[in-house]
Amino acid sequence: MARLKVGVLISGRGSNLRALIDSCARPNHAALIGLVISNVTAARGLEIAATNNVPIEIIDHKLYPDRPAFDAALDASLREHGIELVCMAGFMRLLTDGFVEAWRDRLINIHPSLLPAFKGRHPQRQALAAGARISGCTVHYVRPQVDAGPIVAQSAVPVLEGDSEESLSARILAAEHLLYPLAVQLIAAGEITLAGERAVLSPTAQRNLATVSGLRF
Amino acid sequence: MARLKVGVLISGRGSNLRALIDSCARPNHAALIGLVISNVTAARGLEIAATNNVPIEIIDHKLYPDRPAFDAALDASLREHGIELVCMAGFMRLLTDGFVEAWRDRLINIHPSLLPAFKGRHPQRQALAAGARISGCTVHYVRPQVDAGPIVAQSAVPVLEGDSEESLSARILAAEHLLYPLAVQLIAAGEITLAGERAVLSPTAQRNLATVSGLRF
Repeated sequence: MARLKVGVLISGRGSNLRALIDSCARPNHAALIGLVISNVTAARGLEIAATNNVPIEIIDHKLYPDRPAFDAALDASLREHGIELVCMAGFMRLLTDGFVEAWRDRLINIHPSLLPAFKGRHPQRQALAAGARISGCTVHYVRPQVDAGPIVAQSAVPVLEGDSEESLSARILAAEHLLYPLAVQLIAAGEITLAGERAVLSPTAQRNLATVSGLRF
Repeated sequence: MARLKVGVLISGRGSNLRALIDSCARPNHAALIGLVISNVTAARGLEIAATNNVPIEIIDHKLYPDRPAFDAALDASLREHGIELVCMAGFMRLLTDGFVEAWRDRLINIHPSLLPAFKGRHPQRQALAAGARISGCTVHYVRPQVDAGPIVAQSAVPVLEGDSEESLSARILAAEHLLYPLAVQLIAAGEITLAGERAVLSPTAQRNLATVSGLRF
């Protein structure tokens, strides 16, 4: 079976990229990482990609006159490499509506909260400010509205007394590293599909995602 | 040690009331149910209370000219019975700001969502409409703003493919029956305190609440 070619957009350390690369390296994985694009020249994630023989592209947003021009370069690179699914992984640029629509249903993101709670910036800080006892992370298809779009999967973590933004972020990030690769695997394997504006999980997908949900089933 | 006298406000079946009564019946529980008030004459929860020799009062809101008059009757009854903590348990009347302020920091509620997500009416329906994969319930101190106030404890449950509002509500309700009594026990035992607008859990409280959080720790 042909493996789904995945492109990953990064700006920084690439810890989710590493989790995706490690996951896709397993035998019989339904996806392969066909391209990593960074808008930051010094992103540490680029080293991870290079070490693992994943093609990399640096597309420095500062070299483009505006967002549409930058996004056109992204788009061209993804198409050149035959990318079929794009994963945002700590990518710090807002994408234009045009790009998002061009990659509609083929563009996913992971957000460090249980959406629709705590959209936007600093969701961990928002969770602490709200006094939430439970937070987590969400894999979702991307839509032009910020942090909206069909929810694929979620994983919950406790918020503990004395948590700082850093300690909570680290706990959520550990959950992301389990959730994101599995969600990609299941999308690539056809176990997660879209029906209108809802992601639909097959029984296999639901069973597998339960193991990384942070919940006792 | 004197046990904390708890009053419970109900309007219906009283399944959370039953969980609270059963919990407080255990030896060495730090709370006792000193009064159940229903605004509905036929509330099934009244039978549960009567069967367990818990004092009951029916305060029919239809017999009062307005909300302040009804709330004054509630307040008088709670004070007469020496109630120190009031638990809303499926109580279907909006309380006036005056009542809420009079019982500030001594009035708690359980809401069937992971607040601040899905405030207001039909939170389970809201969770399904949002495509959330995780929902749950929240015990919180009551403030005049709807479903606001310091969060005491939360418990998470999965939202499953094919869930109806009824099936999700039942799963959340089962979590409520574990969470609410334990939260009341811990408040009564002084293991949960308020510091300004934050509930603070002692290590004991945090450890105990983890067992009913629905999370794998």
